[in-house]
Amino acid sequence: MMLTKTRTRFIKSLKLKKIRIQEELFVIEGAKNVIELLKSNFLLHSLYATTTFLDNIRVLVKNLNVEIFTATDTQLADAGSFRTNNSVIAMAKIKENKPLSARTDEFALILDDIHDPGNFGTILRICDWYGISKVIASTNCVDLYNPKVIAATMGSFTRVNMYYTNLKEFMEKEEGPFYGTYLDGENIHTIRFKSRGYIVVGNESTGISSEISALTDNRITIPGAGRMESLNAGIATAVVLDNLYRTKGGEN
Amino acid sequence: MMLTKTRTRFIKSLKLKKIRIQEELFVIEGAKNVIELLKSNFLLHSLYATTTFLDNIRVLVKNLNVEIFTATDTQLADAGSFRTNNSVIAMAKIKENKPLSARTDEFALILDDIHDPGNFGTILRICDWYGISKVIASTNCVDLYNPKVIAATMGSFTRVNMYYTNLKEFMEKEEGPFYGTYLDGENIHTIRFKSRGYIVVGNESTGISSEISALTDNRITIPGAGRMESLNAGIATAVVLDNLYRTKGGEN
Repeated sequence: MMLTKTRTRFIKSLKLKKIRIQEELFVIEGAKNVIELLKSNFLLHSLYATTTFLDNIRVLVKNLNVEIFTATDTQLADAGSFRTNNSVIAMAKIKENKPLSARTDEFALILDDIHDPGNFGTILRICDWYGISKVIASTNCVDLYNPKVIAATMGSFTRVNMYYTNLKEFMEKEEGPFYGTYLDGENIHTIRFKSRGYIVVGNESTGISSEISALTDNRITIPGAGRMESLNAGIATAVVLDNLYRTKGGEN
Repeated sequence: MMLTKTRTRFIKSLKLKKIRIQEELFVIEGAKNVIELLKSNFLLHSLYATTTFLDNIRVLVKNLNVEIFTATDTQLADAGSFRTNNSVIAMAKIKENKPLSARTDEFALILDDIHDPGNFGTILRICDWYGISKVIASTNCVDLYNPKVIAATMGSFTRVNMYYTNLKEFMEKEEGPFYGTYLDGENIHTIRFKSRGYIVVGNESTGISSEISALTDNRITIPGAGRMESLNAGIATAVVLDNLYRTKGGEN
């Protein structure tokens, strides 16, 4: 089938969270992300691609019982959110928001009020790098299914599980320890991390909110030359997870 | 003086590298960056600010022999590159592109073909955090004085010195060691860094170019769970510098 105008309008409408929730669908753009999607357990709804792209992934889509539409690069660029990398767009089913918690031998991440889609996606990519597969996010974080978040994850959204919830309630009932980054905490180069727990990442400009800070029992600090006030949220997450990975010997 | 239309046009014209080179001037926007500028050894040319902002920084500008213009927020937003944080715009003199090299007891950074202004600025901010004060960039990197780079540095452009040069020639005549991040190098968690040297950071999508790779004598690797192919350039830089800082005991 050829991509129709009605269908293009439908793809575009999924840029809105409201519509995504109503339809239980989201959009994935670009070869890299779509190929990761096809290898994952996300339920594919439909595929919109150039004939060249479809020829290349024939094996991956052979037995899929989904609608496949052919489209030109121009049509795909029009339907999608990005100017480039639009040889393919996929639509898949949004996963149920199932509760998650860290096993007794693993760490999970907690995101408090992360607004920027690029930061949010990058943080998921960092979790994936370090083998963290559970992320618990406050309900005021940006939506995982936002096209800019999906793009920034570079495919990591298929391997890192997300759970949106009321963080305060979550942390009150959940056993810690909860590690949060501050300017006056214990040096992450010398700290001995417990064998399980949570790393709390705060908002890009205001840090961890006071409500969540009150529940964060381990204040940790990234040492530096002391000339700067802060590192960005993604950078700080990467440095903390690298130190955690080192002390846990990569067993997470 | 009030900000004039002619002057607004002049501020806007400095968004172009060609004009910046010709005029030897660049633009700094927003309170945070301008205050760092005033405390630095950059030569201030002129200041454009709201009367409220000028009242707040009276002490810092009292003895400065520069043109000061008052302007409304709307005028500043119009003259600048960003929609927000425009209570002040400054114009300062571009520094001479002076040769830099690592002392026998320090590390410097080498940037090979970094195009994205946000990444470039973030990398300078990370250098500043870890006390790295010399960055050598290939001539095809984005310009330090690009307004988006300046904004992303969050003031670090005043403390980190830059030198743009032909990297191949630089590395051929300069003593190493040169450390570059690859997927098959030595684990940064166990490597013993030398007491001086260079960390080479490659392009966001293509990595370190083959020409520069040939001169990079130490291949290093950030360990991870092995599910992802790469980390972004800024993230990788932060993790490498954190490991370097740890082994050098923060003496850099």
